[in-house]
Amino acid sequence: MRRLLLAGPDFSLAAVDPHSTPGFDGGKKKGAAALADGGEVLSSLQEKLFAESRAGSEIAVLLVLQGMDTSGKGGIVRHVVGLVDPQGVQHHAFKAPSEEERRHSFLWRIRHQLPRPGMIGVFDRSHYEDVLIHRVRGLSPAEEIEKRYGAIRRFEAEVAASGTRVLKVMLHIGRDEQKARLAERLERKDKYWKYNPGDVDERGYWDQYQEAYQRAVERTSTPEAPWFVVPAERKWYARLAVQRLLTATLEDMQLSWPRATFDVEAEKQRLAAT
Amino acid sequence: MRRLLLAGPDFSLAAVDPHSTPGFDGGKKKGAAALADGGEVLSSLQEKLFAESRAGSEIAVLLVLQGMDTSGKGGIVRHVVGLVDPQGVQHHAFKAPSEEERRHSFLWRIRHQLPRPGMIGVFDRSHYEDVLIHRVRGLSPAEEIEKRYGAIRRFEAEVAASGTRVLKVMLHIGRDEQKARLAERLERKDKYWKYNPGDVDERGYWDQYQEAYQRAVERTSTPEAPWFVVPAERKWYARLAVQRLLTATLEDMQLSWPRATFDVEAEKQRLAAT
Repeated sequence: MRRLLLAGPDFSLAAVDPHSTPGFDGGKKKGAAALADGGEVLSSLQEKLFAESRAGSEIAVLLVLQGMDTSGKGGIVRHVVGLVDPQGVQHHAFKAPSEEERRHSFLWRIRHQLPRPGMIGVFDRSHYEDVLIHRVRGLSPAEEIEKRYGAIRRFEAEVAASGTRVLKVMLHIGRDEQKARLAERLERKDKYWKYNPGDVDERGYWDQYQEAYQRAVERTSTPEAPWFVVPAERKWYARLAVQRLLTATLEDMQLSWPRATFDVEAEKQRLAAT
Repeated sequence: MRRLLLAGPDFSLAAVDPHSTPGFDGGKKKGAAALADGGEVLSSLQEKLFAESRAGSEIAVLLVLQGMDTSGKGGIVRHVVGLVDPQGVQHHAFKAPSEEERRHSFLWRIRHQLPRPGMIGVFDRSHYEDVLIHRVRGLSPAEEIEKRYGAIRRFEAEVAASGTRVLKVMLHIGRDEQKARLAERLERKDKYWKYNPGDVDERGYWDQYQEAYQRAVERTSTPEAPWFVVPAERKWYARLAVQRLLTATLEDMQLSWPRATFDVEAEKQRLAAT
């Protein structure tokens, strides 16, 4: 599944069917069961990551989530990240930058939210907004955006070199699916709070957003910080896919339980004497 | 259950049996089932809390967890807080204060970690360490500790007045149970990282810690920020009890889904036209 979702050198967003389920044969029921099955492995890997940091390791994981409105970023956090111990998760949802944040480089606020050692950091939106909405809405000059792709590559390489694995996921849905999901928010009183009239305005720029995603992914999918584009119209598939990507990332780290930093037998005797 | 666990004016820690299960008749199996059953209600209340904050409400919840080493604070976070959406949780484990933190009032670092509107804040240890270990180990003069009870009452009243419900839980275990739990950490390689030789030293001060807890609870259990003392030798009971306390706290807030801040029919038409 991982290889099928990886955005390689010839990546084409237009060629990704948002309703497809690459690398998984079953349907919704099988997918939900597989997600539940995978929870324990992921949870145990997360605990090892955390344990290693207590023993002095500097390693961490950063999961970057991007996607159009309603693509299901929140659902991934709830249903995938929610399977691991909250003590090991550092979640941050990036909103439009504050005035103070705007006075700094676009990466300034991102650096502040990088995961501490042992943590799984989750970014719901990220520095990619600065080459997505900024490009589409002309919030920054074209030359500046051009420079940012390079700045992002250097930044992520530096993050990776410091011991943090970077996993970037774009949740991909189609224009009609977004319409249906927004319509649902207007039908249900318990969903009104998720609806933002601005989302309808952004739909007018759909093609430009797709183009901006294409550009961002092709310019910043690197071996140290690869992009995975996950078809997200079937929510169960997107959740399973991200769970597997996260699990594989942690498995690659070859984590192990830290050795005792004390004399186990001596401690047993000390404890017995109390 | 809530009333049975509340530390009222005549509270006596010595009278609490750490192996008991106040307000629950069943055993482990029934308790685990009840915990699973309660997850959905808690999760839905948390979502409402979060939704209200998006609509401008300033309300939040703060769960303070205290207890002797191995009393199961981490397990509560994992198994109770872990049932709600990680996006709505702000967890902080307080360690020994840094040099910078020590230069400020003991409440300084606590204020920095208070939950934002809409969040469930969870403190794994807290400002109570400043009247617990500080009292037992003489890290601060007795008069200073005496003053801190009042400072804590005023601080928590202020937090409550600002819209944050404060729920304080002491997980209560006995001296022998702690010994058994520490011994387990020395038997299992996947538990070594949780073992700290200093924990054995602290066992020498068991009675003083009980006395410090007794004092802290009786001096700071107020209507705005009550203490609940939860027998925690049966982990399944402690988890169920904290889940119910948290659920009851959220229910008291009479949360509701925010009304639409836009014209629903007009938005439906705007969306349909895209």
